[in-house]
Amino acid sequence: MSVDFLAELRRREQWVVAYFSDPRFRGRFRPEHLQRAVYAYLERPGKRLRPAVLLFSCGAVGGNEQTALPAAAGIELFHTWTLVHDDVIDHDEKRRGGPTVHEQGRQMARAELDLDPDRTAEYGNSLAILAGDVQQGWSVCLFAELAAKGVPAEVVLSLIERLESHVINELIRGELLDVQFAGTAIDKVNEDAIVEMLWLKTGILYEFAAMAGAMIGLGTPDAEHPVVQSIGRFASHCGTAFQLQDDILGLVGDENALGKPVGSDVREGKRTTITYHAFKQADESQRAFLKDVLGNRTADDGQVAEATGLLRDLGGVAYTDGLAKDYIARAIPCLDGLEPSGPKDLLLAWAHFMIDRTF
Amino acid sequence: MSVDFLAELRRREQWVVAYFSDPRFRGRFRPEHLQRAVYAYLERPGKRLRPAVLLFSCGAVGGNEQTALPAAAGIELFHTWTLVHDDVIDHDEKRRGGPTVHEQGRQMARAELDLDPDRTAEYGNSLAILAGDVQQGWSVCLFAELAAKGVPAEVVLSLIERLESHVINELIRGELLDVQFAGTAIDKVNEDAIVEMLWLKTGILYEFAAMAGAMIGLGTPDAEHPVVQSIGRFASHCGTAFQLQDDILGLVGDENALGKPVGSDVREGKRTTITYHAFKQADESQRAFLKDVLGNRTADDGQVAEATGLLRDLGGVAYTDGLAKDYIARAIPCLDGLEPSGPKDLLLAWAHFMIDRTF
Repeated sequence: MSVDFLAELRRREQWVVAYFSDPRFRGRFRPEHLQRAVYAYLERPGKRLRPAVLLFSCGAVGGNEQTALPAAAGIELFHTWTLVHDDVIDHDEKRRGGPTVHEQGRQMARAELDLDPDRTAEYGNSLAILAGDVQQGWSVCLFAELAAKGVPAEVVLSLIERLESHVINELIRGELLDVQFAGTAIDKVNEDAIVEMLWLKTGILYEFAAMAGAMIGLGTPDAEHPVVQSIGRFASHCGTAFQLQDDILGLVGDENALGKPVGSDVREGKRTTITYHAFKQADESQRAFLKDVLGNRTADDGQVAEATGLLRDLGGVAYTDGLAKDYIARAIPCLDGLEPSGPKDLLLAWAHFMIDRTF
Repeated sequence: MSVDFLAELRRREQWVVAYFSDPRFRGRFRPEHLQRAVYAYLERPGKRLRPAVLLFSCGAVGGNEQTALPAAAGIELFHTWTLVHDDVIDHDEKRRGGPTVHEQGRQMARAELDLDPDRTAEYGNSLAILAGDVQQGWSVCLFAELAAKGVPAEVVLSLIERLESHVINELIRGELLDVQFAGTAIDKVNEDAIVEMLWLKTGILYEFAAMAGAMIGLGTPDAEHPVVQSIGRFASHCGTAFQLQDDILGLVGDENALGKPVGSDVREGKRTTITYHAFKQADESQRAFLKDVLGNRTADDGQVAEATGLLRDLGGVAYTDGLAKDYIARAIPCLDGLEPSGPKDLLLAWAHFMIDRTF
């Protein structure tokens, strides 16, 4: 790789974190529990891939990355509120090496409020719902700040409208399908439906990140501009690959590197291409075992480990890995029309990182 | 009253409902459960007071109400998503004469999904969280549509930024304080804190409705414009009065007229000026009884009725009624600077309606 991708990624992370850590924002969020909830994930180390692809895309079409910085911070915030709400929905207790927002809220309630024990968990959930709500608002405001950087107001409005209609609707559709699939018999969900769901959950926001960067760089409000479209398609395919890889890491990844527990996807009964493919290959007794364990929240570690091993041995992981590589192979040519440049190289390096990553 | 306020209110309701019922919106929300959740409260009869005050305010400063229509629909949607999330947080089962969104979701899960019974309630909550999220996005998009009505883009961006930073942050702060107060000993919350909390929960959005209408009518992005400020102050006071009246109706109102259960505020332990004032006047044994029942979710109907009677007999309701009237008396003079007009008369009629209403 001709560029030091991870170093360049870290530089953008620093810009973005500096932007949303500006003291002018912090005082907006009160009372203190809400402020801690809003900043919880922002202050923990994260990959910040969405802001990076937005900035790279702006640069790759000839724009100035600094102009796009408010949007880069905005897209990280947008992603963050979806995590906060997803964690409530998925009952996850850990994220980025610390407690999830609702779990942290439960702990604060237990320490500081005079509530019945069964109400402390409710308090944590309420706090997380409200924190995600103000984060969504904040993300829109960060996009609105593009105007102060000289981005024409009609470009800014076009970005906000796309984010708050098409992008949010598709992303939430994916999230709800994910929840519904967990309540649908494993042999009733097919691969196309699973891949569509994970594209909606992840691809759509990566697509928007790249399109937004390009629209800012080109100074156009037109989402149908051919350069905007092809860079969006590139990021969209990479986003699907990212989520396929995420499903692999969520099953057989390293918990410490990931900062979140491995195995909860099994207990929550997440429908992935891994489970789909493995189930298709399984014999009757293996199917019965998988049906028993997938979605069983009280499954013990031994059962989870056995199910994980079975999913791998039946080829589910290898199959999904191949699928992810296919998406990257389809993504790369979408950039053919762009002039060679440093940011273009970074986009290509980013594409490979999406499937090579271990965290 | 020189104007037929209720007839004029109904006319605006029809405009607003027609706006957000436009078929171009409906297809955006999928799958079907999400669509039903997003439209649930919008399709039931509602007072639509926030859009009305926005439209009246636009007219009262000389603007064309039709220009402001997307913002009127937007503010109703914004209010709606806060209701959807509040209902999850408050465990309410009824709203506007039907099931709350999360309760409706639970029923749909039970009928249509293959979930353990304890997961159907979780599904309902997840659906309601996600529905509120997309509604927030939709409300922002409706404001963005002002640009197509000829409102300058910098006015539109100014409105969106104010709604998505100051307004949402203060409103959510009020909501969280409300939750926290329920977990704070009844004698540890004072009247000023309660009134501030209910201003945040309600006054801030009415203030914004009036300011937005005036900014659109005047074509100014300047929220500090003196006319915008005074009309905002007017609506802010009326909003506080509205919430005081809401606390009264939530205790001694008519369940059928309200479309939601009376008594749940007692069981949830809501801290209101009614409970505060009554508690101050109560003797030792009355205090012990109130402490026992307020916030006790398993209190039976007899206990709730006795607590309600006690709160009234100790003067809590009359005191709160007087407080609400004071706020309206403070609001009226804020309109002195406006030329006489039909919309100005409607604003004044609206102010009186806020405390005279029984629904």
